[in-house]
Amino acid sequence: MCTLCGNTQHPTLVNAYGAHAGDKPLEPMRIARRAPGSHDIQIDIAYCGICHSDLHQVRAEWAGTHFPCVPGHEIVGRVSSVGQQVTEFQIGDLVGVGCIVDSCQYCEECDAGLENYCDGMVGTYNSPTADEPGWTLGGYSQKIVVHERYALRVRHPEEQLAAVAPLLCAGITTYSPLRHWNTGPGKKVGVVGIGGLGHMGIKLAHAMGAHVVAFTTSESKREAAKALGADETVVSRNAEEMAAHLKSFDLILNTVAAPHDLDALLALLKRDGVLALVGAPASPHPSPNVFNLITKRRAIAGSMIGGIPETQEMLDFCARHGIVSDIELIRADEINAAYERMLKGDVRYRFVIDIASLGI
Amino acid sequence: MCTLCGNTQHPTLVNAYGAHAGDKPLEPMRIARRAPGSHDIQIDIAYCGICHSDLHQVRAEWAGTHFPCVPGHEIVGRVSSVGQQVTEFQIGDLVGVGCIVDSCQYCEECDAGLENYCDGMVGTYNSPTADEPGWTLGGYSQKIVVHERYALRVRHPEEQLAAVAPLLCAGITTYSPLRHWNTGPGKKVGVVGIGGLGHMGIKLAHAMGAHVVAFTTSESKREAAKALGADETVVSRNAEEMAAHLKSFDLILNTVAAPHDLDALLALLKRDGVLALVGAPASPHPSPNVFNLITKRRAIAGSMIGGIPETQEMLDFCARHGIVSDIELIRADEINAAYERMLKGDVRYRFVIDIASLGI
Repeated sequence: MCTLCGNTQHPTLVNAYGAHAGDKPLEPMRIARRAPGSHDIQIDIAYCGICHSDLHQVRAEWAGTHFPCVPGHEIVGRVSSVGQQVTEFQIGDLVGVGCIVDSCQYCEECDAGLENYCDGMVGTYNSPTADEPGWTLGGYSQKIVVHERYALRVRHPEEQLAAVAPLLCAGITTYSPLRHWNTGPGKKVGVVGIGGLGHMGIKLAHAMGAHVVAFTTSESKREAAKALGADETVVSRNAEEMAAHLKSFDLILNTVAAPHDLDALLALLKRDGVLALVGAPASPHPSPNVFNLITKRRAIAGSMIGGIPETQEMLDFCARHGIVSDIELIRADEINAAYERMLKGDVRYRFVIDIASLGI
Repeated sequence: MCTLCGNTQHPTLVNAYGAHAGDKPLEPMRIARRAPGSHDIQIDIAYCGICHSDLHQVRAEWAGTHFPCVPGHEIVGRVSSVGQQVTEFQIGDLVGVGCIVDSCQYCEECDAGLENYCDGMVGTYNSPTADEPGWTLGGYSQKIVVHERYALRVRHPEEQLAAVAPLLCAGITTYSPLRHWNTGPGKKVGVVGIGGLGHMGIKLAHAMGAHVVAFTTSESKREAAKALGADETVVSRNAEEMAAHLKSFDLILNTVAAPHDLDALLALLKRDGVLALVGAPASPHPSPNVFNLITKRRAIAGSMIGGIPETQEMLDFCARHGIVSDIELIRADEINAAYERMLKGDVRYRFVIDIASLGI
């Protein structure tokens, strides 16, 4: 609703933080949010996590970035307005928005609640939309307006809200493959890479009841991995440690996007084991050895975020198990510095922006 | 039993065809077969198929070939002797032996009837054995002795026996992944490569009730593929034909071992689709694009032959559906020439050796 004339058809201008070009730092800007349609909710954003994808997109390292670009798809906040036909949410509800703000709603994937695999999926930023300026603008902003179908209910205590934000991407991106490939008691699950995604993978796999082995390249991360819930840790450069786990894993969740040797991990899978990749490298991994796949009917698979119902399931699972992300809360004017630290792996494990720092 | 003295502990000498070195042609030789132990059956081999693996192994293109090497793991014949504790077979039974003649019999894989994935699997040739000369010798020979656990019952009419032989490797190697990844009515299944394995894949997927699309590099194989049971054919170099099948396959069974572009095939899989590889290239495929896996939760998997119970299931399925291999029957002294023709793809679709041609 327009704050000047009360017209519900006007877009609302809000403060945001984004970039005008791939080689420019992020800076304060004003962006428009549509007036809520009949099925929309408007959310006053409290916190937004910083995902590595944000950096890739806003720096135009991925193709097709539209500028101005406002990243952010780990959004939590409170409902501040609802459309006339909204049934699921009320003003004041604690909610989250993840990577998806729209989809075709009629395909097989949408019917199955797998909007993440819908060809018409609209990402929370940099995706085509009828709204100004023609592409979606993300959560580094004071408000967002989304169709209620793509909003999630947050059942965590409010004091955990900032640490809930990363569940909307890092959480669901690891939860979905863990669930899909049947993580649970009696299963041995590896998690490769202990960063934003990996630290959630360890927490979630542990809470699901699996025997969790954390793989890291760094001796220094062993204790941290155990604190997150890993039953064992393996320094992947240590051949002896790796050999001790040959042919023993049901699932290895690989969160590392940098090109690396997949064969060393494939060899650790038992028969019918799956190496699930959730990161895509900019240049290809060395080509995996097909013999490693054939000899134990192993698979290399990919997984991309998760569907809306599964995201709700994940949030509820995390609320029941007291799981949140380990975060470092920052102000909006610290985003550029946070990107640099993220590139060096200098964060345990997720930056979250306090949106109050965007001003009034 | 020794034919001279009647001693059941003596090995029996039989005619075989094999090679004394990787760079030598195959030639007639005499080899020893152990006297049947209490759980063994002795088989008078009638026919043995020629698999591409035979050529790789006997020419030492794969590591670790022991010489003399007698290939052959597509064996059919008649039981000519049984050990005292054999319960499943009688003298005169039509039987087959595939790629496996022993395994550890106590691991998880053996318990599950997946002896093909047992770490102690003993291949029908070139695998360690207590028998002379210390490694197994295959089916290019007059007789073979195996533990009854690894023998299969053949229920096809006897006049089809020669064409049954290739089912023991080419048949099960394609049947197992088709079944494992749920081929059946309502499923769209691709088969890449129309050779020894691929022609069986088409027949089997068709008999299982799937919609079958055959991929070939050769325009000339279209009609043949349809005759085998393909509902559609795609010449994989034709970008337009390929594009018509984007995101539509549940399973693509890839029988091509030569290095090739997997991305073009991955793009044809629907969500949760599987690209199943049954051939391992000597040099790696170009590294597949991980985005192709992630965006639709697709998988690249391997599959290796099949377990003994599944091989019996496959043989019975083929008997019920009247399925055999398309073969060209040759004499043993034509094996070397057949290898050369096989290298050129000049066979529709499997050579089978008439073991009677080995003499008496």
